Amino acid sequence: MLSRNQVKHIHSLKQKKFREIHRQFLAEGSKLVLEILESPHKVMAVYALADWLERNGNILLSKKIPFTEISEGEMERITALSSPSPVLAITEIPATIIFPVAAIHDLLLVLDDIKDPGNLGTIIRIADWFGIESIICSENTVDLYNPKVIQATMGSVVRVRVYYFNLPEFLSSVDPAIKIYGAFPEGENIYSIQLDQRGIILIGSESYGISPEVISKVTDKISIPSYSPATGRDHAESLNASIATAIICSEFRRRNR
Amino acid sequence: MLSRNQVKHIHSLKQKKFREIHRQFLAEGSKLVLEILESPHKVMAVYALADWLERNGNILLSKKIPFTEISEGEMERITALSSPSPVLAITEIPATIIFPVAAIHDLLLVLDDIKDPGNLGTIIRIADWFGIESIICSENTVDLYNPKVIQATMGSVVRVRVYYFNLPEFLSSVDPAIKIYGAFPEGENIYSIQLDQRGIILIGSESYGISPEVISKVTDKISIPSYSPATGRDHAESLNASIATAIICSEFRRRNR
Repeated sequence: MLSRNQVKHIHSLKQKKFREIHRQFLAEGSKLVLEILESPHKVMAVYALADWLERNGNILLSKKIPFTEISEGEMERITALSSPSPVLAITEIPATIIFPVAAIHDLLLVLDDIKDPGNLGTIIRIADWFGIESIICSENTVDLYNPKVIQATMGSVVRVRVYYFNLPEFLSSVDPAIKIYGAFPEGENIYSIQLDQRGIILIGSESYGISPEVISKVTDKISIPSYSPATGRDHAESLNASIATAIICSEFRRRNR
Repeated sequence: MLSRNQVKHIHSLKQKKFREIHRQFLAEGSKLVLEILESPHKVMAVYALADWLERNGNILLSKKIPFTEISEGEMERITALSSPSPVLAITEIPATIIFPVAAIHDLLLVLDDIKDPGNLGTIIRIADWFGIESIICSENTVDLYNPKVIQATMGSVVRVRVYYFNLPEFLSSVDPAIKIYGAFPEGENIYSIQLDQRGIILIGSESYGISPEVISKVTDKISIPSYSPATGRDHAESLNASIATAIICSEFRRRNR
């Protein structure tokens, strides 16, 4: 049974302002909540259907996490998803750690104003798959703890570290020996250009690409070639930001095995 | 000014049942509507804000397409998008054409129960980018003319042909000389396996992968290797269906240039 205050608190966490005040975020879906329960993240409270609690209540008991059994109707009132899941967890936002800028020893993803929550979540999942431990976001990138971002990470949010910085400042602080790869229509063919295995992959926003303040920091312009079997045939003007990220990361990792 | 009947008709087209009865679908967003206006698709009616009509009304006049100027409030009442665009077009669903199954001369994408509209739309955009002219969908794949699918194609819906078939039957009718590539966790490394430039790429559903009735048709099991710089580190269990499609298509096209 949900109290009015609980409902109000959960709804407030759908807004960035209240997530920052309470230092809490929402995680929904059985797979995601179970991943978070196994991670170092601190879960403050769990709201779940009877079925889910029957199967997983022992985990909550052993970790001493407060939980509330709720009905499907109650879940529909609190969920941030279009089709509700059997479980919702209120989770503590971990303390911000300092990004070790002096120690870029592998690939690093840098996102310049990604606005779509699905894209950010999907990019975090891609980074996790390709062993990229950290992502740097511009300050105008969508909030990591937006429920739709958390959902789209499919659990990868517990493994990939995401930081928010002023990008021009951040990129100026990077060791000049590290290449900064940015995708541009006129860039060099990613399949044939030389790619360092230590480097920064800069991804532009969905609508505007890489922003003017950051373009000058790019050391290597790359592009994903389109393919037209029939000559003169038109094709898509661009790829979605998360799709481009996936293809670029795949190509970097292909070279290093 | 919108009539009640117009509003009712537009709302009905958000449902597959009525799209099939009327043989019409909704397209929204300036870029998409302009691409459709330039394509062979037949536009039945356009509803747009005054600004948009001022800039693009001449195209509608020259093509003799009926249009209605509406207010932002009216657009909010009829849109299928979360943030309304300045233009909505009612478009005729083109007559079904027969897929030339005997003539697979290039890559063909086959989708086995893709359920998420964003994934289908994104896959159509990927196919367009990589010059894949046709996509075959299982009968339970989300409807092409769902407004969210149309939106996510970003205009590629006018260039890529999408067919719905019973997949086991379709795959049985394919020339046995044509390889059918399917992604499985235990498949061979896509970066090193030999890839034919004429072939079928089979993509499984988001939740269940490739379905049991279709698995036996796969001739070549492939996989996208994950990458773990730190030994023993956990990583994402899987990639999103559209992300996997992008990486696989990129790798096929990389080999053929």
